[in-house]
Amino acid sequence: MTAPFLAAARGETPSHTPVWIMRQAGRYLPEYRETRASAGGFQEMTRTPELAAEVTLQPIRRFGMDAAILFSDIMTPLEGMGIDLRFDPGPVIDNPIRSADDVKRLRALDPDEGVPFVLETCRILARELPENVPLIGFAGAPFTLLCYLIEGHGTKSFVQARAFLRSELDAARELLDRLAHGMALYLEAQARAGARALMIFDSWVGLLDAPTFRALERPAIERILTHLRPLGVPLLYFPNQGAHLHHEVVGLHADVIGVDWRTPLEAADEALGGQFVLQGNLDPSILFAPPESLLVAADSVLDAGRSLRRGHIFNLGHGIDKRTDPDQVARLVERVHAAPVRATG
Amino acid sequence: MTAPFLAAARGETPSHTPVWIMRQAGRYLPEYRETRASAGGFQEMTRTPELAAEVTLQPIRRFGMDAAILFSDIMTPLEGMGIDLRFDPGPVIDNPIRSADDVKRLRALDPDEGVPFVLETCRILARELPENVPLIGFAGAPFTLLCYLIEGHGTKSFVQARAFLRSELDAARELLDRLAHGMALYLEAQARAGARALMIFDSWVGLLDAPTFRALERPAIERILTHLRPLGVPLLYFPNQGAHLHHEVVGLHADVIGVDWRTPLEAADEALGGQFVLQGNLDPSILFAPPESLLVAADSVLDAGRSLRRGHIFNLGHGIDKRTDPDQVARLVERVHAAPVRATG
Repeated sequence: MTAPFLAAARGETPSHTPVWIMRQAGRYLPEYRETRASAGGFQEMTRTPELAAEVTLQPIRRFGMDAAILFSDIMTPLEGMGIDLRFDPGPVIDNPIRSADDVKRLRALDPDEGVPFVLETCRILARELPENVPLIGFAGAPFTLLCYLIEGHGTKSFVQARAFLRSELDAARELLDRLAHGMALYLEAQARAGARALMIFDSWVGLLDAPTFRALERPAIERILTHLRPLGVPLLYFPNQGAHLHHEVVGLHADVIGVDWRTPLEAADEALGGQFVLQGNLDPSILFAPPESLLVAADSVLDAGRSLRRGHIFNLGHGIDKRTDPDQVARLVERVHAAPVRATG
Repeated sequence: MTAPFLAAARGETPSHTPVWIMRQAGRYLPEYRETRASAGGFQEMTRTPELAAEVTLQPIRRFGMDAAILFSDIMTPLEGMGIDLRFDPGPVIDNPIRSADDVKRLRALDPDEGVPFVLETCRILARELPENVPLIGFAGAPFTLLCYLIEGHGTKSFVQARAFLRSELDAARELLDRLAHGMALYLEAQARAGARALMIFDSWVGLLDAPTFRALERPAIERILTHLRPLGVPLLYFPNQGAHLHHEVVGLHADVIGVDWRTPLEAADEALGGQFVLQGNLDPSILFAPPESLLVAADSVLDAGRSLRRGHIFNLGHGIDKRTDPDQVARLVERVHAAPVRATG
């Protein structure tokens, strides 16, 4: 039988509603903190295949999640494109891109040379994961990567990055294009190394208005999707805080669209024309509620999920917070697995 | 003749489209940086009426803005409620609220005792501003203030604050209620000291889903508006990043709704049922574009503004960035003032 995550991602009817959680391999888990302490830090873990595979497996073992997601960072492959990267604790780039000349500095990515440790992690996980728990490979979306490349670090609204789109339009286009090329190769390499689904995280796309998204980011996303399509694995795109862009997302060659917690799944399905399987979207802060309130909220997302035209993959609407009680996650996963599934195939 | 800002805010036809800019008294202005350097810092400026009034007046003198906005911070009045506040450079609270007991610690605000310097700043400005340039008084919205009070400082998604709404629902309600009470008195005092319009900034409300907004924040906002209504001054509410909440904003007793740059004004007008004058919403990053692109983008916002059912006040969709060239602001204001006005009264 097809793994529930893959069935749902293809718009078929799974045996139960699949569930996984963004940042499920993370600091809220004591076993993760232990591995991290012995490794010496986040970046060391991402670069050591045995450790990256170990923390990827931890939430599968503990909760019985329906998918594993590669333990890495969206910025990791940029090291293979000539960017110096460190974490403090978020990504910091000491040589940010500030000009058209800087853009030309970016090398094309050769995944085997640039990020061999990521591919080795995928190979280990392909061997060690149960058959019904596929590995999701992932990359950052071009605009989201551009945000960090221009600013050099995280900010609240990436004004400098957005200003670059205005003041250096040609250079911005070239940068997005180079990033799309690199991420397409990166995701393809992950699939060849064992990833059975591929996800593009567009964490900061919500900062764009619709005309800018349409002109600059949408073509970059579509370029990646078109490159990956022939691989035959489900393709997921997460336009975080992108409710105002949903009408522009229609027609993208993705299978699954991630929805953040602010947009009800039914409203997203409507705006997206019912074209996609939707993934999401419980507010991560609800994991801090008393258990009975958590289950009521989970049921509400499950109900919404059953109303979707193409189907539903349960997830949070954002990464899980490090202060979350793992027992709450266990309750949530149990609830999702016990819920009835509506036929969508 | 009525000041253009006040005419527009009341849904009457102004002699020209009024324009002001969020954070117009700020670091992008050399004269501001000079005043700040001589004052010793941001907090000193907010507490010294002559300096606060001086920087409030600077953009009026330089650009001929149609409204002045009190130079202060949304957190400032909380000092009068017993909260220790410092800026580093954003607001930092060393004694954050983490429990129901902490909420009870918050004192009721007596504006004359707690923030006499703010009221004195309003009185100076009421004397010094030209008759056709009204002073806008302002306060932070209860949920936005709660975000800082719980976290103790700015974060990207205020998970701890949102978790408090889930884990301590009764205490959260009481906190929002106390903040609504305090901000209602604070805004009233500003109006009595000379402010001719009052604005509520809800910078972080976009983090809430619609049911949570409806249950917790909307009643707090409406409580403030209802208290202020009898004063007869226009009331403005800015639900930042709140496009997904617009259908819940309908019916609030505000005159003007601020719109961030992600939502086209026409779409906001539609979602808000045409009930409000809209204020906004040029993307601040467009001020970094070449002048001709800036003017095209400004014209596009002006066009949208002319299509609104109740009228338009031109503004950015977010605070101006400190790296902005003041000459670009001058070009923008000139363009808005030269634009034709459509009758809306």
